Amino acid sequence: MSIITLTTDFGTGSPYVAAMKGVILSIAPDVTLVDLTHDVPAQDVRHAAMVLDSVCPRFPKDTIHVVVVDPGVGTERAIVYARMDGRHYIAPDNGALSRLAEHYPPEKLIRLANPAFWLPEVSNTFHGRDIMAPAAAHLAGGTPPERLGPPHAELVAVPRLRGYRGDRRIEGAVEQIDSYGNLITNITADMLEGRPTDERACIICGIYETYGVFRTYAEQPPGTLVAIIGSTGQLELAVVGDNAAMRLGIERGTIVVVAWD
Amino acid sequence: MSIITLTTDFGTGSPYVAAMKGVILSIAPDVTLVDLTHDVPAQDVRHAAMVLDSVCPRFPKDTIHVVVVDPGVGTERAIVYARMDGRHYIAPDNGALSRLAEHYPPEKLIRLANPAFWLPEVSNTFHGRDIMAPAAAHLAGGTPPERLGPPHAELVAVPRLRGYRGDRRIEGAVEQIDSYGNLITNITADMLEGRPTDERACIICGIYETYGVFRTYAEQPPGTLVAIIGSTGQLELAVVGDNAAMRLGIERGTIVVVAWD
Amino acid sequence: MSIITLTTDFGTGSPYVAAMKGVILSIAPDVTLVDLTHDVPAQDVRHAAMVLDSVCPRFPKDTIHVVVVDPGVGTERAIVYARMDGRHYIAPDNGALSRLAEHYPPEKLIRLANPAFWLPEVSNTFHGRDIMAPAAAHLAGGTPPERLGPPHAELVAVPRLRGYRGDRRIEGAVEQIDSYGNLITNITADMLEGRPTDERACIICGIYETYGVFRTYAEQPPGTLVAIIGSTGQLELAVVGDNAAMRLGIERGTIVVVAWD
Repeated sequence: MSIITLTTDFGTGSPYVAAMKGVILSIAPDVTLVDLTHDVPAQDVRHAAMVLDSVCPRFPKDTIHVVVVDPGVGTERAIVYARMDGRHYIAPDNGALSRLAEHYPPEKLIRLANPAFWLPEVSNTFHGRDIMAPAAAHLAGGTPPERLGPPHAELVAVPRLRGYRGDRRIEGAVEQIDSYGNLITNITADMLEGRPTDERACIICGIYETYGVFRTYAEQPPGTLVAIIGSTGQLELAVVGDNAAMRLGIERGTIVVVAWD
Repeated sequence: MSIITLTTDFGTGSPYVAAMKGVILSIAPDVTLVDLTHDVPAQDVRHAAMVLDSVCPRFPKDTIHVVVVDPGVGTERAIVYARMDGRHYIAPDNGALSRLAEHYPPEKLIRLANPAFWLPEVSNTFHGRDIMAPAAAHLAGGTPPERLGPPHAELVAVPRLRGYRGDRRIEGAVEQIDSYGNLITNITADMLEGRPTDERACIICGIYETYGVFRTYAEQPPGTLVAIIGSTGQLELAVVGDNAAMRLGIERGTIVVVAWD
Repeated sequence: MSIITLTTDFGTGSPYVAAMKGVILSIAPDVTLVDLTHDVPAQDVRHAAMVLDSVCPRFPKDTIHVVVVDPGVGTERAIVYARMDGRHYIAPDNGALSRLAEHYPPEKLIRLANPAFWLPEVSNTFHGRDIMAPAAAHLAGGTPPERLGPPHAELVAVPRLRGYRGDRRIEGAVEQIDSYGNLITNITADMLEGRPTDERACIICGIYETYGVFRTYAEQPPGTLVAIIGSTGQLELAVVGDNAAMRLGIERGTIVVVAWD
């Protein structure tokens, strides 16, 4: 039984999501559907790229991941099939797959150009329902990806803003804010390797600072700003028992520095 | 394996939804459950009717669609089973099915009056859990609809506000606002047939106007107000790359006019 | 085919939920996953306890309920397996299961201490993904709970605030506000037994009062404050056709009194 996941910016509860599910189940009634998330900020391809990179590899091999964050719908941008690390991806070629592709170079790339695997009527504004959903369902039913269209040369890359690793400092930024208000940065555990992480490390986020990188939120008293290595291997700032983003007024893009003297 | 979809106004994340799923899986453990949407505005039967009409026909024949938007729960309003276009519907008879019924005249109508297919204890306020969920699960398990109760004469109709098609103008209104803030009107592609849709057509929405009906959002520069025929075959107004409802302060019910001179 | 439900405070649409689903499906690809709710207020164990108590018993016996509301993640709090009333629960031992345990004394308690059933790498901040999800998936695959770890003596209890039943009055409080804005109290139908519930009963909620306990919302005209026994057997206050919490400015914890003279 195949698994198909859906990632969109339609908003949870959008009937557009349900329409895609109806199309998929009409072609492949036995698939297991999983909502990866529908709360990608509207048309935010970079955010989608980050979420896909952190979550998709948790799914079994052969999972079919469908991504509909598609600001260019109806233009000449390609819709592609990619196989990476034994999993299948269907998405507009707009950079949404670029972070995954950095870690898992594509084993196969196809351009979805064969209308035999689309709905008979294709709208100009909802290719998720009319092209991507049926293509995913046909894959789940055993159609080889080669039948979906010709080879596609290369994925569009959206460069990731990486942290900078200097001599006495590492510079980065808040890349994502989770539903607890924790501030997830683009500074990774690797970048900290070989550096002290005890109270000699000063972590600065906007106008706030804290010392040392801790193991868990709960090691410090409520209300304290703490830095930890989060569950995705990235440096994360949190206020114990509170919402750091709201409490401190921090937004995505805020500069984060780790410094030693 | 049967598919049961759920449409409610409980709000995504409501434990009431989960209670219905528990009841269904207790009777029919092998069904595939799909959330159609739980974000129908509270008690907004007309909105439910619109969503059901656009999404339910995308599902396979024999899907069982359960609808719990039920301002009259506990009163004498009937709960009905309807078969339309080979799909099954269970809903309070309050108009929620009326737009579907316009397109797909009911092939069978039953009043859910046989408590043998309800939970043993029926509350006064949650017939979704106590009557509709178990009835749907019994249908999924093979119970013929006739056993759920006696025939039901006719569905309550909630008249749809249709656009008006005059000589040099078509008048309608914003019927729905999607999660991108696009303004979906009750003016359909059919109503525009035979009329020019190039720059001779002036589309007026509240105090704003734009010229021509385009194929896609992306044909115009960001920030532009554009009119297109959307993925449900309805005239739709959008601001490219932005949220039209918020940007322009437009609400459901705003008058939309297409005029030629 | 096993059923696994997920209850978290991650927020609907959180990719953290999807990561747990990926882990579960990688180990047990045939399970049926059900979202119980992901909208427990952040770290609100008491709220989780209430939701679990009202919804979990609706699911079939042998359902595996996984609960990740875990303010103490990374500290010494135990993660436990509990069997209650023939259903399986995996949760941090922080009181989230305490209301269920009042009604269904645990038949078996295990402390999840055997890393053989965890992910190979365990983060300090996301035991839902790294310990609870894989343990649940292994249970679904037939692993006996005894293999997950040693017996656990007793569940942490978080005492429930109960209503007080006096001679001419019952005192309680608003315990939960549902998505319609209805005010659900900790005064139960049992507590009202033997007392008049007609207009002799005066129900006071904050600065508002109403007389009599009704069967359904719809018995009174729109805009009226009514008291009913809700679908969970608790006294509930609602404004007909409106959102009582917003209309009256009532919050959780507001005192509710039923009085007779």
